Amino acid sequence: MHVVADVDRLQRELEAIFGPRRVSTRAVDLETYSRDMWPRLLIAYREGQQGPRPHVVVWPEHVREVVAVVKLAREQRIPIVPYGGGSGVCGGAVPILGGITIDMKRMQQIRSVSSAELVCDVEAGLNGERFERELARRGYTFGHFPSSIYCSTVGGWMATRAAGQLSTKYGKVEDRVAGLTVVTGRGEVIETDGPTRALRGPSWTQLICGSEGTLGIITSARLRVNPAPQQRVFRGYEVESIEQGLEAIRRVVQKGLRPAVIRLYDELDTLINSMSHHDPKEPNERDKTLQPPHLDVETGALPAWPEMEREDRGFVDRMIALAKGKGLRGTAMNLALGKSSVVNKLFGAVEKVARRGCRMVIGLEGARIRTEVEAALTFAELEAAGAKDHGEDPGWAWLRHRYAVSYRMSPVFRDGAFVDTMEVAASWDRMQDLYHSVRNAIGKHALVMAHFSHAYADGCSIYFTFAGHAPDAPGAERLYDAIWRDGLEATTRVGGTISHHHGVGLLKAPYMAGEHREAMALFEAAKQSLDPEGVMNPGKMGLRQR
Amino acid sequence: MHVVADVDRLQRELEAIFGPRRVSTRAVDLETYSRDMWPRLLIAYREGQQGPRPHVVVWPEHVREVVAVVKLAREQRIPIVPYGGGSGVCGGAVPILGGITIDMKRMQQIRSVSSAELVCDVEAGLNGERFERELARRGYTFGHFPSSIYCSTVGGWMATRAAGQLSTKYGKVEDRVAGLTVVTGRGEVIETDGPTRALRGPSWTQLICGSEGTLGIITSARLRVNPAPQQRVFRGYEVESIEQGLEAIRRVVQKGLRPAVIRLYDELDTLINSMSHHDPKEPNERDKTLQPPHLDVETGALPAWPEMEREDRGFVDRMIALAKGKGLRGTAMNLALGKSSVVNKLFGAVEKVARRGCRMVIGLEGARIRTEVEAALTFAELEAAGAKDHGEDPGWAWLRHRYAVSYRMSPVFRDGAFVDTMEVAASWDRMQDLYHSVRNAIGKHALVMAHFSHAYADGCSIYFTFAGHAPDAPGAERLYDAIWRDGLEATTRVGGTISHHHGVGLLKAPYMAGEHREAMALFEAAKQSLDPEGVMNPGKMGLRQR
Repeated sequence: MHVVADVDRLQRELEAIFGPRRVSTRAVDLETYSRDMWPRLLIAYREGQQGPRPHVVVWPEHVREVVAVVKLAREQRIPIVPYGGGSGVCGGAVPILGGITIDMKRMQQIRSVSSAELVCDVEAGLNGERFERELARRGYTFGHFPSSIYCSTVGGWMATRAAGQLSTKYGKVEDRVAGLTVVTGRGEVIETDGPTRALRGPSWTQLICGSEGTLGIITSARLRVNPAPQQRVFRGYEVESIEQGLEAIRRVVQKGLRPAVIRLYDELDTLINSMSHHDPKEPNERDKTLQPPHLDVETGALPAWPEMEREDRGFVDRMIALAKGKGLRGTAMNLALGKSSVVNKLFGAVEKVARRGCRMVIGLEGARIRTEVEAALTFAELEAAGAKDHGEDPGWAWLRHRYAVSYRMSPVFRDGAFVDTMEVAASWDRMQDLYHSVRNAIGKHALVMAHFSHAYADGCSIYFTFAGHAPDAPGAERLYDAIWRDGLEATTRVGGTISHHHGVGLLKAPYMAGEHREAMALFEAAKQSLDPEGVMNPGKMGLRQR
Repeated sequence: MHVVADVDRLQRELEAIFGPRRVSTRAVDLETYSRDMWPRLLIAYREGQQGPRPHVVVWPEHVREVVAVVKLAREQRIPIVPYGGGSGVCGGAVPILGGITIDMKRMQQIRSVSSAELVCDVEAGLNGERFERELARRGYTFGHFPSSIYCSTVGGWMATRAAGQLSTKYGKVEDRVAGLTVVTGRGEVIETDGPTRALRGPSWTQLICGSEGTLGIITSARLRVNPAPQQRVFRGYEVESIEQGLEAIRRVVQKGLRPAVIRLYDELDTLINSMSHHDPKEPNERDKTLQPPHLDVETGALPAWPEMEREDRGFVDRMIALAKGKGLRGTAMNLALGKSSVVNKLFGAVEKVARRGCRMVIGLEGARIRTEVEAALTFAELEAAGAKDHGEDPGWAWLRHRYAVSYRMSPVFRDGAFVDTMEVAASWDRMQDLYHSVRNAIGKHALVMAHFSHAYADGCSIYFTFAGHAPDAPGAERLYDAIWRDGLEATTRVGGTISHHHGVGLLKAPYMAGEHREAMALFEAAKQSLDPEGVMNPGKMGLRQR
């Protein structure tokens, strides 16, 4: 890879493609595009440290402009980083060698929504919430509702194999994509897999999905949409233990039932979540504003999901409340987080006394009759597994606050700690092992809680949330790295996988060879073929540097 | 590619791997493995012409033996052809350059069926009917029921992206595969995609699926299974036209309903099928032996599908009956088939008089309550689209005879004609065009009928059956080639795809570049990486010859 010797010249060449207004070398832009939401970068950023910056940022509006910039970069061997919403949490959009960052957000047309095929053709830079809002207006849903929906793009979803909160019903994004348009690292345009069910030979869509910009830039996607749901049914349940809750989930999904949401929170996650429900600033009435759901008179569809509610109470407040409310009076957050293994143990002791169970949230949506039938069958399975019905309120409360989690990070960082999430997955027979091994591995270093939220007939993912603290940035980085190292080593030791839906980026790149083993040669071959100069998003996903 | 200069030496080297009993150069074996069920080969074979033969056939029992033979072939640059059931209809298993044919049928263990994960681990050479029978005995189904189920293997299904008769519910095989074990053309063993939902990066499973032995040999597969159905509901319907029937199917699948079977026959297919129901040798009572289905007292599951019924009445008999019964008295089959465009036209005229509609068959299966609810909803959609209920008998009759079609070919060939099927697909908006264009294209040359049998929210496949005749083998081959050329050109002209589930092989290899366009370079790159010497199934799928 060459360094950019003459930025002025590069800028002039790019302006010849994009005009002067869609090329920037301004400091504010270079800083903005120096990072995504990878927490490790935020630790350094908080301390005023500067990460690697792109040399220049461009905003294409047409495929031909993407082709032109890729060809220019290829000729001059300048790195390219595709950039969507910048909401990634693994460093996948960090320009570690500088170069050109291509922000796709000006390519945001919904070109068509076909009622005949239930397929829409959408450009990669479209924001997730706008996408769902537009679909809802027309009576459809894509069914992908990640926590990041307000700050992620369609292209980013495809590049990382994202999963949304309703994935149990709608699938991960790779299950909903009929084809992609991709500008490869050679500057060629490929339409993957062409007409409907045209799978005569290997699937190129499934080669590009999850490649995180290392093979090419996704410029648009043909996505399957569903009719907007007519009916929603949400409930809360409680189980005595993780074991019981997992068995309940397994029963439901293995019977072929597909609730939109089926979540199980471990004891700490349950406790912290339950505290928010007693928050006097948020009476239960507010949770119910969506209940019963009101139909759109024009389309007969339920309203689109609620506007983003900017959550002011933070994760940190809950940590402190936990400490105070559970007899750890006087221990400040710094103590709690600095000695998290103590907190984790204390919490365990408190739990025994409280005999508190684990919370579950179950939601179904879809066509009216089937949703009601599936809800009845789902609830019957849960109750057969010993889960106790807590009524509708906890279900609607979850729905109301479903996007809040993404906005809990800032106050934690502001107060000097860090928080991150680790989403791993395994088959059902390894689920207990995975939960306990990773929880113990992280718990040595940080406060950790978990929920189970993406279930399949063959297994489930676990979403660990952890909060740590160290006196200075280098210490915090060392702690952060130790958490990930120990957490992912525990994961692979019990036969789990290092990522369910956040992707790989820089964070998990060192683990790719171990996960893919001999198949890594396939990835290298695809890379060599599609990006022979290695300009596409260099340093990511464990691919060899050229 | 080298020719095999010294077959005796090769045989000795292979016997060092396999022992003497699992290596053969006997003429009967070389002839057996010279072809699959590609009808074009049968035309020549009937005339006593000899096709290309392998130099030697081997029967591995372990992955290590597959590795050893691939390494040996790679070193000596000898072609390898993987061979499953030999039921392919596109020439995918024909050893056009000779070499070593590897029959996988001795690798046929079901290694595990996990009730915890609903996943089974099965070797590639297992016969389809045995696989389903074993699963049914344990209370499960894979849900893949191709017409070839008695003579195809799990590995062949994966290699060709097969679809079975119940695909609307269960999906194509690529939708049911969690991972594959593959011996690549380098002789390396790859386990694709590892543990559950381990899709961090591209999907290698979906790269190998459909590669038809050109990248490696599938030795085993991890497949998702379902609980065996508790309930089946089958019915026949009639619609006035193809248009009305397609609209009915589209309504059903776009509402998210997933009947196991939803088939629509065009007028000629309806007529020929309906004649078999009045066949005095087959009273309706026999059709009903499965009605109502009897539960297995041990597992609570429905019985496995019925034993193969060897069908003596052939397709030919029906052609002749058609001619006689519809006022074409005196026209022999040879006339009918030799002047099929006349027959097709005459048939059209007859149809107008008879005002005969199009038959549909709909079947649902699964858990009891949901199956009954889905059946009620499905039938309501069909009736809302104008379909007329013909009761249960036609549904159960279809079920009874579902595998018969595969055994209709022999009598046609015996009597000097040929028959073949062309399965193409497109999105709903192109469906009418696809049907009429391909029907007209084939109808110029042969008698042609069609049914629609694999439906999705975004489109559907069409299964054309055609019968042709020419005075001699070269003439029949020319006719056969003209049918395929005109049929596939019509398909691509209206934006359809050349194959829905039969694969590519030799037959459709010339159309691969047109279908995949720029993405063909990806296939070449994968080939170069996994099979640098080009020994794996050479000449297939439009890949460059090395």
